[in-house]
Amino acid sequence: MKLKYLMPTHVVMDEDCVYRNRALLAELGKKAFIVTGRSSAKHNGSYDDALRALKANGQEHAVFDRVMNNPTEVCVYEAAAECRKAGCDFVLGIGGGSPMDAAKGIAALAQNDMTRERLFGLDFTAALPVAAVPTTAGTGSETTPYAVLVDTGSADESRFADGRKAQNDTSYPRKRSVSTPLIFPRFAFLDGRYMLRLGRDITVHTAIDALSHAVEGLISIRANYLSDSLARESIAMIMDSMKCLLDFPADPASFPPEIREKLLLASAIAGMVIAQTGTTAVHSMGYQYTLNWGTDHGRANALLLAEYLALLESKERADPAVKPRIAGVCEALGMDLPAFAELLNKLLVTREKATGAEIEAWVNNPVTARSAPNCYLTINRDEVLELFRRSVG
Amino acid sequence: MKLKYLMPTHVVMDEDCVYRNRALLAELGKKAFIVTGRSSAKHNGSYDDALRALKANGQEHAVFDRVMNNPTEVCVYEAAAECRKAGCDFVLGIGGGSPMDAAKGIAALAQNDMTRERLFGLDFTAALPVAAVPTTAGTGSETTPYAVLVDTGSADESRFADGRKAQNDTSYPRKRSVSTPLIFPRFAFLDGRYMLRLGRDITVHTAIDALSHAVEGLISIRANYLSDSLARESIAMIMDSMKCLLDFPADPASFPPEIREKLLLASAIAGMVIAQTGTTAVHSMGYQYTLNWGTDHGRANALLLAEYLALLESKERADPAVKPRIAGVCEALGMDLPAFAELLNKLLVTREKATGAEIEAWVNNPVTARSAPNCYLTINRDEVLELFRRSVG
Repeated sequence: MKLKYLMPTHVVMDEDCVYRNRALLAELGKKAFIVTGRSSAKHNGSYDDALRALKANGQEHAVFDRVMNNPTEVCVYEAAAECRKAGCDFVLGIGGGSPMDAAKGIAALAQNDMTRERLFGLDFTAALPVAAVPTTAGTGSETTPYAVLVDTGSADESRFADGRKAQNDTSYPRKRSVSTPLIFPRFAFLDGRYMLRLGRDITVHTAIDALSHAVEGLISIRANYLSDSLARESIAMIMDSMKCLLDFPADPASFPPEIREKLLLASAIAGMVIAQTGTTAVHSMGYQYTLNWGTDHGRANALLLAEYLALLESKERADPAVKPRIAGVCEALGMDLPAFAELLNKLLVTREKATGAEIEAWVNNPVTARSAPNCYLTINRDEVLELFRRSVG
Repeated sequence: MKLKYLMPTHVVMDEDCVYRNRALLAELGKKAFIVTGRSSAKHNGSYDDALRALKANGQEHAVFDRVMNNPTEVCVYEAAAECRKAGCDFVLGIGGGSPMDAAKGIAALAQNDMTRERLFGLDFTAALPVAAVPTTAGTGSETTPYAVLVDTGSADESRFADGRKAQNDTSYPRKRSVSTPLIFPRFAFLDGRYMLRLGRDITVHTAIDALSHAVEGLISIRANYLSDSLARESIAMIMDSMKCLLDFPADPASFPPEIREKLLLASAIAGMVIAQTGTTAVHSMGYQYTLNWGTDHGRANALLLAEYLALLESKERADPAVKPRIAGVCEALGMDLPAFAELLNKLLVTREKATGAEIEAWVNNPVTARSAPNCYLTINRDEVLELFRRSVG
């Protein structure tokens, strides 16, 4: 049997857990570089809790609160320069997947002033320590070694001899991943209170993101006993919460806090899964919706997940091992694929529609064509086309 | 929800995985202090594989191969002095639970020349990095922050003002635990080949040790979603292997290698469980059999496990939460408690018998009386007595 397992993040979950566990934060350094978005962390209390913990520890801080949704490499380079200038020796990412992924990228760049190609090519051996405080329940970034960034191709152009982008290069902007154990958060602080007022769409979309991570983990060729066990646990927790997601209340504050917590932990566990298995074509194809339409990342996965499972099951040339894997997904979900497709449709409410030209462009994009390295079936161009059509055609 | 999860060990499983992953070993330092028992590691190939990996890395080494079963603090102090003298900067534990636990104790002592009270009182802040190569499938020491040592009370006597043991002190020798994340192995190398020739008793007893870890994890008050998930996975893997354990072949080499591997991984996963939950009275009471009779640690657990579960279930004053927990154990095992008791009896073949005087002495031992800090029920003196009688009376 071959297996690798690594998930070194120390996970702490509790009400007010950043402050209560501030001794952990004290281990990280003398000055925190807080990385967050423009406003949500300030409204949900997470930012103040972090400041309170740092102050009690006698730790200084600087703040970068300009992380946008789907952060670009440009943003991360700019923040890393500020981090170095401020003399911070650790990074504290607070927010959804965007600030946490940005924090991890910044931790790498602050320690190593390097080109984009070195960053994405993992040509570095150290990063500042990172702590993560998720304020949505979906990304799992708090327990993964990944930072997904939008590479606009403009932070440096060193890969082109003439210093400019090739005119026919349709591969930018694209989502790229910095993937190294160096950026595993040292600590993940899970406090469900930060999500108490999250609205219907973000709650549902992030929950599907976590579900997608766990399901994709089960059908990854890198799945193993450990990742399977965690994936099943995460799926069970999300499916236990499904009734509340389907009947989301008019007032988000009425959504049961214990279900918020359950989804938060399920998301962290699903992060542990993809930390081992990676994701599949669902993720890489879904990035097109996010890049082109601004679709929420979790929603993009929801638009593809059931369709991808059905396609995998229907393809005779797929590795025979995939069928029992899909059966395992259905067992964990407690339903068959058609019922799962129907469930996702209910959660999606409606489906985005792409024009034929859009789909053609995505299929021709060399990045999309490279999708699915962790899959039992490396889907070909026709199948990518078919999948986009079933998803948003 | 309150939860803590930490299991930072990088687990690698593969045939010849120490050598194949020697780059990991290279990260640990320049000179290894190899800690092992007198002979088994030399016979099963693990010692040579480690030397080959170190040599290929250009790393030096020194060897301490005098770890006895149930290593004493005296042994660990002696080894730590050799480690310091040899200038080693990391520790490589090869063997069953005894060498691995010793390696972790040595890692702490080599870095900190301290008294026994500081060692067990965790009054230190650093330890040499440790890598672990298990050659039995039961202890799970490769994935825990624990080193269980026999404290003979003789390594130093600083706790007594007059420098001698109190005459009426019946609490030595006793098993004590060094418990700190500092001694989590950095790497665990799992290679099933080292177990191919293990005989019936050690194979069965160590498997029950792992099973006991997973079951005790499920009934610990510190259990959480993550530990439960891992515990169920480990139990399922061991129960899948049960037929082979019950029908152990006359020639140990005929035991299926893939079941050896499954048990090895199940044991590492059960270690991850108790790394979160700790163990229960089964362990603390079973230490009496090991200390007084030399009973294998896993066998000692087997003598108590079903009896302890039955006692827990029968006590009305137990926390009501314990009943669904025991139901969860039965579900994971795929059988009820009487059937589990029968299964353990089959694996034990016979039961040791204690005299009334022995049992009285154990019950009066202040260490036994302190058992069960992680349990839903803190069993009292009468219950400890009852349990010993049911187990070996």
